[in-house]
Amino acid sequence: MTKPRQKQPLILVSNDDGVYSHGIQALAKALKKIGRVVVVAPDQERSAASHSLTLHRPLRITKIATDIYGVDGTPTDCISLGVHEILDGTPPNLVISGINKGANLGDDVHYSGTVSAAVEGGLMGIPSIAISMMPNGNFHFESAGEFVVRLAQVVLKKGLPKGVILNVNVPNLPKEEIKGYRFTKQGKRNYGEIIAERMDPRGRKYYWIGGDQQGFVNIPGSDCNAVLEGYIAVCPLLIHLTDQTFLKELSKWKL
Amino acid sequence: MTKPRQKQPLILVSNDDGVYSHGIQALAKALKKIGRVVVVAPDQERSAASHSLTLHRPLRITKIATDIYGVDGTPTDCISLGVHEILDGTPPNLVISGINKGANLGDDVHYSGTVSAAVEGGLMGIPSIAISMMPNGNFHFESAGEFVVRLAQVVLKKGLPKGVILNVNVPNLPKEEIKGYRFTKQGKRNYGEIIAERMDPRGRKYYWIGGDQQGFVNIPGSDCNAVLEGYIAVCPLLIHLTDQTFLKELSKWKL
Repeated sequence: MTKPRQKQPLILVSNDDGVYSHGIQALAKALKKIGRVVVVAPDQERSAASHSLTLHRPLRITKIATDIYGVDGTPTDCISLGVHEILDGTPPNLVISGINKGANLGDDVHYSGTVSAAVEGGLMGIPSIAISMMPNGNFHFESAGEFVVRLAQVVLKKGLPKGVILNVNVPNLPKEEIKGYRFTKQGKRNYGEIIAERMDPRGRKYYWIGGDQQGFVNIPGSDCNAVLEGYIAVCPLLIHLTDQTFLKELSKWKL
Repeated sequence: MTKPRQKQPLILVSNDDGVYSHGIQALAKALKKIGRVVVVAPDQERSAASHSLTLHRPLRITKIATDIYGVDGTPTDCISLGVHEILDGTPPNLVISGINKGANLGDDVHYSGTVSAAVEGGLMGIPSIAISMMPNGNFHFESAGEFVVRLAQVVLKKGLPKGVILNVNVPNLPKEEIKGYRFTKQGKRNYGEIIAERMDPRGRKYYWIGGDQQGFVNIPGSDCNAVLEGYIAVCPLLIHLTDQTFLKELSKWKL
């Protein structure tokens, strides 16, 4: 007699590098060990899309293979369409976004489409994780994949409080060279020279937003410091944003 | 003998409805009573742009009139180019974003370009305010304009703590019908039916993200409740997002 098959956890996976990126493929492959994985991701790269929603035009869903869908929109669109349409309104057990090619540390979380996909999951009350990898040559996605499976299993068991997501950054190193993991606070970036001013062939100025994104403020206990020291950083980020402390102070203000 | 002219505060104004919107014009007009106002805003509507940055293409700045500039990018782009290029790296005394045609209450703050422009100011360490108006017929922008001048004057005097911005929502009423102001926490929206599924003329499905956005969860003390009761809501929002409480709990987890 065979045991009845256990109901598998359902994991919705997205990213901002696009449905064909190696990072999301590595993530999906790793997570298949612990559940059914449905990938719903932008059909092209949407880095720095932040939490933008596409409201001014319709969206298309393209089925690429079983449980893999591309959307011509943002990461936030993907989570919304993923839950409400592709999964027919059944909330998944987890939303996991990544593996992003490039860190999402400190202030990056405000710009990041990867993190925003997890925030959208969190706003729906689904335990959600964003996972990113430091940029440095070829990506050791297998290191991040293995870690996120361990983390996902614990989150599936313990859950996450409402109003918080986990933002994970992994050093780009082979598994055996990663020193371990740390639970961290959010650090602070130094974006360096933010904007390049250039001249087009007709002599008109244009601007390109960049920032070399290499610098960090040295804050012990921060995500930036942990990753620089060779540790995986796991940072709990609030999605309910009221500053309760300052709210008390504000109530004394007279306007 | 005349008194030497006081150095005026410098106020950078942006929005997501675009540089030609009535809301930003009313805001600039009101703020000119208390300082020099420089407007840097998207050259077209960029609602729900959230905190997205334009990284994949160059940006143009168009000078529309003295101290009024249009940018072919997002609200976040506008604050970045405004401070680093148009103001030559001189941080303004205040960043104020709005007056948005439509409320930014509860979860809206994650999607809103108006709020994100203020967040970008906050990330640069500049005291920043987002101001939005409930949608309901013709907009009484003068009510919001008058209030934001009072608020701006107090913020210029007292400053704001690092890592927090103020998110203001104003009922769309004539000044004399507004009951007053309240300092609030962030509420929670019910977005209703989020996605419309339709068929194009060739019989292919498409999806349009919408949500009637009329519902609120009834949370006493929230921004949503205050505005519904006829009060202006002033909500302090965190931009440093670490959940310190859960971080303590997390540190007991074994992965």
